[in-house]
Amino acid sequence: MPEPAPEGLADERADELAVLVAAARTCRPRAVARLISIVENGSPALRGLMSRLAPDTGRAHVIGVTGAPGVGKSTTTATLIAAYRARGLRVGVLAFDPSSPFTGGALLGDRVRMQQHALDDQVYIRSMAARGHLGGLSVAAPQAVRVLDAAGCDVVLLETVGVGQSEVEVAGTADSTLVLLAPGMGDGIQAAKAGVLEIGDIFVVNKADRDGTQSLIRELRTMIAMADRDAAAWKPPIVRTVASREEGIDDLVATLDKHRAHAEADGSWQRRRLERARSEVESLTLLLLRRRMHDDHRTVLDDLAEAVRDGRVDSFTAADRVLGDVTDPKA
Amino acid sequence: MPEPAPEGLADERADELAVLVAAARTCRPRAVARLISIVENGSPALRGLMSRLAPDTGRAHVIGVTGAPGVGKSTTTATLIAAYRARGLRVGVLAFDPSSPFTGGALLGDRVRMQQHALDDQVYIRSMAARGHLGGLSVAAPQAVRVLDAAGCDVVLLETVGVGQSEVEVAGTADSTLVLLAPGMGDGIQAAKAGVLEIGDIFVVNKADRDGTQSLIRELRTMIAMADRDAAAWKPPIVRTVASREEGIDDLVATLDKHRAHAEADGSWQRRRLERARSEVESLTLLLLRRRMHDDHRTVLDDLAEAVRDGRVDSFTAADRVLGDVTDPKA
Repeated sequence: MPEPAPEGLADERADELAVLVAAARTCRPRAVARLISIVENGSPALRGLMSRLAPDTGRAHVIGVTGAPGVGKSTTTATLIAAYRARGLRVGVLAFDPSSPFTGGALLGDRVRMQQHALDDQVYIRSMAARGHLGGLSVAAPQAVRVLDAAGCDVVLLETVGVGQSEVEVAGTADSTLVLLAPGMGDGIQAAKAGVLEIGDIFVVNKADRDGTQSLIRELRTMIAMADRDAAAWKPPIVRTVASREEGIDDLVATLDKHRAHAEADGSWQRRRLERARSEVESLTLLLLRRRMHDDHRTVLDDLAEAVRDGRVDSFTAADRVLGDVTDPKA
Repeated sequence: MPEPAPEGLADERADELAVLVAAARTCRPRAVARLISIVENGSPALRGLMSRLAPDTGRAHVIGVTGAPGVGKSTTTATLIAAYRARGLRVGVLAFDPSSPFTGGALLGDRVRMQQHALDDQVYIRSMAARGHLGGLSVAAPQAVRVLDAAGCDVVLLETVGVGQSEVEVAGTADSTLVLLAPGMGDGIQAAKAGVLEIGDIFVVNKADRDGTQSLIRELRTMIAMADRDAAAWKPPIVRTVASREEGIDDLVATLDKHRAHAEADGSWQRRRLERARSEVESLTLLLLRRRMHDDHRTVLDDLAEAVRDGRVDSFTAADRVLGDVTDPKA
């Protein structure tokens, strides 16, 4: 992944990027797809793209959708798309699945419900693996969100297909995070992966027509009541849905609106977005350093590693020198 | 984990370190324990310690011991200790177990065989969790090896109790890596974790008195024969052991000596040590950057994160500025 300075971008490439960005703004799905591929592949145009998009972003409501396998994440996502489309909003979906062999915008095979939106040019659905992205999801996810945001999506849904730690982290950096549960999944709320319950702004009990719904809701209420929070802070509500029949989805959308209004009013909206930006800048800084060590400063790293091996330099001094060298403006 | 410059170490602390290092050289186990705790906790004295030890290291033969749970890693380690002690050598053991609650030199409960060495001051055995170490095992392991090496250990055994990726990587950076297998563990060599077979310099078929030994050895032979290597390159031998009865251990020690002699002769010994030093310097550089971002340059990171959130600066430009600021000698 070479990393040219913005001015290094040839004029025709910059022009091409401008055309793509303009096309994405007018809902051309293929243009959006190409821009997200630039993110996913960490291609040389990425830096120029991010610089171009920066002023145009921050409008979309980013909604994380997470929960254990089988709770109905993709059905819920599909019905949320339909609900937002019924309001005339433009919707983007990023499905993160580190184990998926499908990338480049391929839909997962079992997402029949999402395919109803496949011909709607106001909906953009993309499966992202981000395995090729050195910085991982912590860098790729906010960059892809930025593309959809700049492309005019009013809502961006981040669906975590995988249940790895990085997917949970991505869901946790959304403006609003839905944690889905379903009755009959074994040990009630214990079935949720550790760390998932803590990030929920809204708990969705899906498949709420099944046995065990009441006891699951009681468990959740107890957990929510026990959490230590300010009286003025957002208290995660519980929404019951049967996503396969679109039941409860209007209530869920209304609750998402309430969460947004509450968070905007008490400042937590901007604080969380600051946290998301900080995490992205931090990950990207480490990524840039690693890349420079490997590419431009390989000789320095090799020489110092040899000195450390032979006991001429200690490892901390070597690390200091690498850090100084990599960022030396004279170099 | 604060990070003072070496000159920031108060004189009495530097003196204390000198006393500890001198005591460790004369086999005082408590001194060795305190030095490894400095590594494990990433304490402020670590930098000074590494600088002090650097010239004294590189002598010990570092041997990785890895394999699936149940193959007999700790029994093999214990019998290897006995064999090296019988030759009059000093032995250090680091057992890496990320899931272990035992640190600070505690022995794992089931290591009865290792306890026979507990009173031998020429043997130092330590369980390390390295969870508290921000750089993870890739930084903590070579630092702990350096302590044992400087303390006069002729052999340092790295036993990977856990089977996580980082344990496999640590075993793979040893001078000689033993991959242990045992018959009757299910699917033969398939039972070994992915990536483990590739790092073996010597394959140890332990519990070789059991059914299935022959077919396991045949499988290994086929695999070794299929690997693409130079005619002059080291071809991993297969050693049969019954570690619980100390059978085959002399053969294993002789094979380890052969591997060392071969690697020293063909240059791979120094190349692998260079790779180990490079990986350590690289991990430590990233660790130092992360620490500086969090500690000394938090304001810069926060300001830039805010600018990214608000679309005033793109994330790449922000990352460039953080990298420049963190390493600015004027700062």
